[in-house]
Amino acid sequence: MGTLRIDLNCDAGEHFGRWTLGDDAAMFASVSSANIATGFHAGDPAGMVDTCRAAVDAGVAIGAHVGYRDLAGFGRRFIEVAPRDLRAETIYQLGALASIARSVGGAVRYVKPHGALYHAVATNRGQAEALVDGIATSGTGSDAGGAPLILLVAPGSLAGELARERGISVAHEVFADRGYLPTGGLVPRGDPDALVTDPAIVARRAVRFAVERVVEAVDGSIVEVAGDSLSLHGDTAGAPRLARAIRDALVAAGVEIAPFASPAPRGAARPGTA
Amino acid sequence: MGTLRIDLNCDAGEHFGRWTLGDDAAMFASVSSANIATGFHAGDPAGMVDTCRAAVDAGVAIGAHVGYRDLAGFGRRFIEVAPRDLRAETIYQLGALASIARSVGGAVRYVKPHGALYHAVATNRGQAEALVDGIATSGTGSDAGGAPLILLVAPGSLAGELARERGISVAHEVFADRGYLPTGGLVPRGDPDALVTDPAIVARRAVRFAVERVVEAVDGSIVEVAGDSLSLHGDTAGAPRLARAIRDALVAAGVEIAPFASPAPRGAARPGTA
Amino acid sequence: MGTLRIDLNCDAGEHFGRWTLGDDAAMFASVSSANIATGFHAGDPAGMVDTCRAAVDAGVAIGAHVGYRDLAGFGRRFIEVAPRDLRAETIYQLGALASIARSVGGAVRYVKPHGALYHAVATNRGQAEALVDGIATSGTGSDAGGAPLILLVAPGSLAGELARERGISVAHEVFADRGYLPTGGLVPRGDPDALVTDPAIVARRAVRFAVERVVEAVDGSIVEVAGDSLSLHGDTAGAPRLARAIRDALVAAGVEIAPFASPAPRGAARPGTA
Amino acid sequence: MGTLRIDLNCDAGEHFGRWTLGDDAAMFASVSSANIATGFHAGDPAGMVDTCRAAVDAGVAIGAHVGYRDLAGFGRRFIEVAPRDLRAETIYQLGALASIARSVGGAVRYVKPHGALYHAVATNRGQAEALVDGIATSGTGSDAGGAPLILLVAPGSLAGELARERGISVAHEVFADRGYLPTGGLVPRGDPDALVTDPAIVARRAVRFAVERVVEAVDGSIVEVAGDSLSLHGDTAGAPRLARAIRDALVAAGVEIAPFASPAPRGAARPGTA
Repeated sequence: MGTLRIDLNCDAGEHFGRWTLGDDAAMFASVSSANIATGFHAGDPAGMVDTCRAAVDAGVAIGAHVGYRDLAGFGRRFIEVAPRDLRAETIYQLGALASIARSVGGAVRYVKPHGALYHAVATNRGQAEALVDGIATSGTGSDAGGAPLILLVAPGSLAGELARERGISVAHEVFADRGYLPTGGLVPRGDPDALVTDPAIVARRAVRFAVERVVEAVDGSIVEVAGDSLSLHGDTAGAPRLARAIRDALVAAGVEIAPFASPAPRGAARPGTA
Repeated sequence: MGTLRIDLNCDAGEHFGRWTLGDDAAMFASVSSANIATGFHAGDPAGMVDTCRAAVDAGVAIGAHVGYRDLAGFGRRFIEVAPRDLRAETIYQLGALASIARSVGGAVRYVKPHGALYHAVATNRGQAEALVDGIATSGTGSDAGGAPLILLVAPGSLAGELARERGISVAHEVFADRGYLPTGGLVPRGDPDALVTDPAIVARRAVRFAVERVVEAVDGSIVEVAGDSLSLHGDTAGAPRLARAIRDALVAAGVEIAPFASPAPRGAARPGTA
Repeated sequence: MGTLRIDLNCDAGEHFGRWTLGDDAAMFASVSSANIATGFHAGDPAGMVDTCRAAVDAGVAIGAHVGYRDLAGFGRRFIEVAPRDLRAETIYQLGALASIARSVGGAVRYVKPHGALYHAVATNRGQAEALVDGIATSGTGSDAGGAPLILLVAPGSLAGELARERGISVAHEVFADRGYLPTGGLVPRGDPDALVTDPAIVARRAVRFAVERVVEAVDGSIVEVAGDSLSLHGDTAGAPRLARAIRDALVAAGVEIAPFASPAPRGAARPGTA
Repeated sequence: MGTLRIDLNCDAGEHFGRWTLGDDAAMFASVSSANIATGFHAGDPAGMVDTCRAAVDAGVAIGAHVGYRDLAGFGRRFIEVAPRDLRAETIYQLGALASIARSVGGAVRYVKPHGALYHAVATNRGQAEALVDGIATSGTGSDAGGAPLILLVAPGSLAGELARERGISVAHEVFADRGYLPTGGLVPRGDPDALVTDPAIVARRAVRFAVERVVEAVDGSIVEVAGDSLSLHGDTAGAPRLARAIRDALVAAGVEIAPFASPAPRGAARPGTA
């Protein structure tokens, strides 16, 4: 029997100028993949350099957390962006982060849409196609040492389907701290069972998912969920401690924590000037 | 004796959303290099895609026109940006445009600082070092088929000196429509002799520079100027016609118009998906 | 029988920094009300000063053209703004323009939502309430010499209904260059009959509306429409000439062109320092 | 002999969208005047509403903390803004905050330039004139119940001189936590004596200033400083506790803490709809 393995991902680099959010360094001690903001909903270039360097130093895989152009709304508000704009904004953000990652000897390995865009591309065909076409034509993966970009979304996301049709690999993420319906869907936010807040229970659910690829739904039934990564939140006060608890529980259960995409692609070399 | 050759460069892609400026397509019929705005002082991603595609189709070399983060001021106001921010903003902008250029089968071949940044890096050491270090560490050139980025500045710019020390090639530009001092410097804007507005005289100066590498200064003396490119303005009503007149005069004088950097680097391939 | 009278309104001040749009001065020679952009979708402060001064000098009533915070999209994309944000953004924009209008001896007399916000508040209750509550609580009208702000929307807009319930006066606008359905609704954009482009026909429709308060629908039937203002477009090349043609036709038909809100409220005095 | 009295001012409302900074509510328990960010360097409209409401509820005077248009730099970087732009941006920001203050029954009573603008207008004539002219022509004070705006700057600021020439009242602020030179100037930042960090010493200096209008300079000499307000910092972790310590020390010394401008101007009335 092979080794049990799971990826832990969290958002990172969600600062802007004078403002910060979360404790990336503390989270990077526990996670294996970092969704790094690319400047449209959060993230300024100098902070992106620091975040990428911290990820490289911690051996954490770098993902591009692309979002709507909406600093005031932190990318959490749906915007009726025209597909040609969204496609180009995707290419722009991927290239910007790729360049910054290269400057510190890293490489962008995957793409995760952020906030309202994450939800939009799950069902909105125009926006999902725009995102996927942006990834496919960005050339970001092909210049990063030969390893093409992977798309990280929720199971069932339309963007995931369209990506596979274009030959883009897709990884799925699961939420240890969200309630699940017997159908495998998430309990809607606002519902009392939407969030799991007890750290011990969250850690137990994480382990069960990593070992058995199932979650216990709100009605007690056991649901199979296909997933390559557990999504952790990094922007709350207790986030680093919860991440550590989950990591420790997984390691104790014999699960290896490793990125679904290797942090450094084949052939990547740290520039001498970095 | 070898062929006489000169590059003509102009700013391009200086739109933003609903707003446009200049007629890029008309200018691309005459110039050989395009300084394309990278989103900080002008340029939105969808427009950058269009501008890069037009440049590729016209065989015009793509340059990154990096600027201060200042849409409201069009990058024309000095900003006391900290070097670490400017360095990272340079890397960010270079990567963003490189990704967009790749998506249409092109590649960024050179960097020209825009507006107030152009002037700042001519003398301000902190900002000049930041710009140069950003170019050196961006990795943008090294992933574009092996051809490293060239820096395009005015003769005597501190940024040019620092770039050469870092092993970056430097190209210099000359202004056919600006008055020159006997020292080789420009007559300050605001001075009555600062601008040359008669198209016939501008064209004649362009030819003389291309053939003899000299300009006639305001006192009638002849000054040698080292330059690889003639800078044309594209944002005024008569700009395309003036550009055409200059091009025609050069061609009539037996001068070949060609980019100082080849539009497509060795090994560049148009992505099948573009 | 009293004098026939109609208002002509157009958008104005849709510049941003280096970029301009339309010819406000030319339009102000024909219209009686100007919807001046307040900085969120277009308009920078110095340009707003110029536009307000031009409106005051031309005797044109100043309206606040409030929009979504979206320079990149020119306010034409729906954004899922939370009502508390939209309410506060309305107050912010109204106060900003009011202050600028006062600085040149003018006053904001009405509010017209712009672009996607105009359409959203026609049906979206949360956003319509937020807009109306922002107007009601801004205090902008009450400090401008006693004349409360009027809301300018399309007939049937939910925002208009909610405004009347709050005691806010509502003015309605009609489009001489849009096709109408027999129901009084507009022919949807994209439909071949959506736009009326022949200037002579547009002018004739404008006169008929001003004199009889009816429009001829696409099926030839005559529809009564309640309206206080004719909306003209100012951002196309021929806009000023079309505006002049409409104005001339109205005047020839004995219709007086006058703002639905008087340009200067009772008691308004030009500050001595302006 | 009259009552000893001093104002305590602090920055407030320095949030933006998802990002926050400092604890305004905690600071408002100690200070008497709040410099509220007006959206250009920090502050979004919904947060400005909350901050103004908190100030009104706490009886704290509202000041407009106007700054450069530079969210990315938090207004701390000098920008070579043209005077006509800075003047208009001042009017814009004053009107926006005034409207928001009115919506919660408050009023803007004074103006304090923020960050790099604060320093620029101390010596840069073009920018100082622009700021002062913006205040003079905004009409913000004249519509707020008759009480004109006061300008709050450091002693010796050029903007203060120019304001007095225009008939604008000027208040001066002193820093209890900054080292002073025997000349009355501040020890430059970066110098070891630039900051006073011991809370007990800061409080003692605050009391001495409030009672005797003097500070002890770094060489031990006693310097008279003219000041109407003590400036406290609110964006560090221990700021509210330090503010409380200073307030308590002042009260214990018999000093009354009161705004230099009354929080509510004569004739101001809370709108019924607020």
